[in-house]
Amino acid sequence: MIDLRPIALVAGVLVAMLGAIMLVPALVDLALDAPNWSVFLISAVITLFAGGAMTVATWGWSGSLSIRQAFLLTSVVWLLMAGFGALPLYLADAGLGFTDAAFEAMSGITTTGSTVIVGLDSLSRGVLLWRALLQWIGGIGFIVMALAVLPMLQVGGMQLFRIESSDTSEKILPRAAQIAGSIAGVYFALSVACMVAYLLAGMETFDAIVHAMTTISTGGFSSHDRSFGYFESHATEVVAVVFMLAGSLPFILYLQAVRGRPGAIVRDSQVQWFLGAAAVFIIVAFVYQLIEGIYAAPQALRHAAFNVVSVVTTTGYASDDYGTWGAFAPAFFFFIMFTGGCTGGTTGSVKIFRFQVLFQHMRVQLARVSYPHGVFTPRFNGRPIPDEASRSVMAFVLLLFVCFAVLAAALGLLGLDSITAMSAAATAITNVGPGLGDIIGPAGTFAKLPDAAKWLLSFGMLLGRLEVFTVLVLFTPAFWRN
Amino acid sequence: MIDLRPIALVAGVLVAMLGAIMLVPALVDLALDAPNWSVFLISAVITLFAGGAMTVATWGWSGSLSIRQAFLLTSVVWLLMAGFGALPLYLADAGLGFTDAAFEAMSGITTTGSTVIVGLDSLSRGVLLWRALLQWIGGIGFIVMALAVLPMLQVGGMQLFRIESSDTSEKILPRAAQIAGSIAGVYFALSVACMVAYLLAGMETFDAIVHAMTTISTGGFSSHDRSFGYFESHATEVVAVVFMLAGSLPFILYLQAVRGRPGAIVRDSQVQWFLGAAAVFIIVAFVYQLIEGIYAAPQALRHAAFNVVSVVTTTGYASDDYGTWGAFAPAFFFFIMFTGGCTGGTTGSVKIFRFQVLFQHMRVQLARVSYPHGVFTPRFNGRPIPDEASRSVMAFVLLLFVCFAVLAAALGLLGLDSITAMSAAATAITNVGPGLGDIIGPAGTFAKLPDAAKWLLSFGMLLGRLEVFTVLVLFTPAFWRN
Repeated sequence: MIDLRPIALVAGVLVAMLGAIMLVPALVDLALDAPNWSVFLISAVITLFAGGAMTVATWGWSGSLSIRQAFLLTSVVWLLMAGFGALPLYLADAGLGFTDAAFEAMSGITTTGSTVIVGLDSLSRGVLLWRALLQWIGGIGFIVMALAVLPMLQVGGMQLFRIESSDTSEKILPRAAQIAGSIAGVYFALSVACMVAYLLAGMETFDAIVHAMTTISTGGFSSHDRSFGYFESHATEVVAVVFMLAGSLPFILYLQAVRGRPGAIVRDSQVQWFLGAAAVFIIVAFVYQLIEGIYAAPQALRHAAFNVVSVVTTTGYASDDYGTWGAFAPAFFFFIMFTGGCTGGTTGSVKIFRFQVLFQHMRVQLARVSYPHGVFTPRFNGRPIPDEASRSVMAFVLLLFVCFAVLAAALGLLGLDSITAMSAAATAITNVGPGLGDIIGPAGTFAKLPDAAKWLLSFGMLLGRLEVFTVLVLFTPAFWRN
Repeated sequence: MIDLRPIALVAGVLVAMLGAIMLVPALVDLALDAPNWSVFLISAVITLFAGGAMTVATWGWSGSLSIRQAFLLTSVVWLLMAGFGALPLYLADAGLGFTDAAFEAMSGITTTGSTVIVGLDSLSRGVLLWRALLQWIGGIGFIVMALAVLPMLQVGGMQLFRIESSDTSEKILPRAAQIAGSIAGVYFALSVACMVAYLLAGMETFDAIVHAMTTISTGGFSSHDRSFGYFESHATEVVAVVFMLAGSLPFILYLQAVRGRPGAIVRDSQVQWFLGAAAVFIIVAFVYQLIEGIYAAPQALRHAAFNVVSVVTTTGYASDDYGTWGAFAPAFFFFIMFTGGCTGGTTGSVKIFRFQVLFQHMRVQLARVSYPHGVFTPRFNGRPIPDEASRSVMAFVLLLFVCFAVLAAALGLLGLDSITAMSAAATAITNVGPGLGDIIGPAGTFAKLPDAAKWLLSFGMLLGRLEVFTVLVLFTPAFWRN
């Protein structure tokens, strides 16, 4: 049996922290004389009490985790965050039932950005702020998990990012605390910079705060139904593009830049590949709009840059219903959903380093055909890629597509049409946000989907955010055997 | 430089054989007093002359191939077969231009089954017979290639099917000749059995001959625009299902059965997995039709069995426009295109053994999470899978999807709508035949696509038939370097 006490202890501390953060929207609604302040206060008390009780009941544990405890803890923490995060959404006057509140909270904490709310513009400020806070917390939570937890769990090729090979599962928590401490400053500074930039570009203060939090976390929740279409401002979109990209880079490189090595950012091969891929996709979308006559040159470039970056960084803002840009557009945006940014940033999806590993691998396979006795070594950032890491990356990519296919098929069986089922499955698993088509496209919402579909998609978002293996391993009998 | 003489010699012999086979439709049209007999005679003379010239000019070569020569030979042979195979289609009164004739011939020789011809029912018998013959030749050609050539080229995990580890590229031609000799009898016997079964089920003689050839080769060309919808016969469909499945099993097992070991067929894990997968897909399609109210129980089972088996075996017959069976149908048929049958049969697509290897691999990855120090060995048919073969399978699957994505994107840029672009790319690369949607679905044809799309799809069919790597390696600079 797995000892659950250390799991309850860590989860309890984090739940209590979430409860404390709920006091922020409570204060904001109180200050603005808005109706939901009591909802947030009650939710905060419940959450603080639950987290506190878990902590107190299991206090006095030593500080080291086994590999299985680490797996279980990871899934449990994200589930509890979504669960307690849904509480104020359910209780507030946002018109959300149990399913919708859970969906919205999961979409928030996983920084997906799919929404079931129609009428964001008239929603109470506390609720809008809480949605943004969920994404902001989810963003830094994911960075810490990707740097401190996943490399030691060795899932999906993340072992490539182990800093010392002596790192073991027992050191997960101390390392997580250390990384969270050092990254938090950068994360906060970038968020403030983004907010100031939005203000300078002409956004209102509240919108600037909300969008800064959902930009840097590449989450994509907006305080307007029309998302960035509402602002109709070129300057605002430029700011968004810059900070969505900023959120997609490895945060550890910012730390190195601050410590006097700014060159590390431009020399990192992940960064080069990611920005290169984004540039190519923008050019394709731009040229295609010109060919199809969707927009004239300046507008076409603007819409291409904003919407492509939004999807590639798995943010999910929209300035236009890009699914209607001619016949090719849905297929194009569907494919680029599966790109993702750099590991150590806030983006979801496959992520660029896995494409680098796969590319290296194919290069070696093709070279071996011509030189059967040659020795070829796949490399990542100049270092050889261990065989085990390559296999792990390939297993990840395949498993991601299997999960996508199963999820899409299940949604199809629930009666969703093909484009809705396929794009909903893809957008959930890649943590992008909007789907394609009339219902869940950039101009629609997930509100009309059946409840069963919302639960499946919530599970898909969790799968995507935890890099698939972390969750699926809990469903194998071997995990629970002694 | 690669010595091209041995390539020209082998290709010349095969081209000459193709020319000789053209005399069959010439004789049929002559006997039936049909107009195209002279077209086939002229084509036969040209093809025989070209093949003969290549052979004579390069005669006197020793009989061993280097690995690079084997790669080049494989692609060259299939290209020449499609090229010369297109000749009578272009010259005959079928109304086909140069592009259409090339597309139809490539679709034939790769046993894909996509057609650009509208009005099959009134087409001259010689042309109908030639299309069927192309698929029949392509079918046995593919089996021989999969057994004798690909295992030695070590592409896409085919090294799992090397019979002796001492087999080297020099032995490719002797082994190919030996395998062709032993398989040909089984292939011919199954074709005759299929034809007799069709006759007993009530088909006319000519239809029975044509469909027997395109069934056993899992090709899918029909002599009627409505494909199997034309016959409206339950018995005929049952025969088709049985022989499409028969064409999907490893032909080597039939040989063992004839030699007194019939149990080998049921004990083979590929066969078990393949028939299991087909059964599951049939049940899903059956239940779904009942839920959606498409057909009542007996009809639903009949349509599910026929159309699912047709797609899973990459044949491509249709008894109904299955793309219109409700919202889920296109996604479902799209996914099952990527299944394929057993290696050593005539089917295309991913093929079931690769799913077995991937499944084994994921099982091991998941087990390793729970037991980081355990030793787990992925196995195929009871034997351990070498690491190199696993990596090769994974590289194959990923490369297939990359090719699919690039092809779909290119078709999208040519202005095809999403469902047409995606399903055309998939159906070409998997060698299935019909696509999805109004234009290229089971009720449509590829005639209306732009010429550029037809060329891209022809290349896609070749890529799929030659298991991707075999063709792509020719595009790497390393292949041509000394």
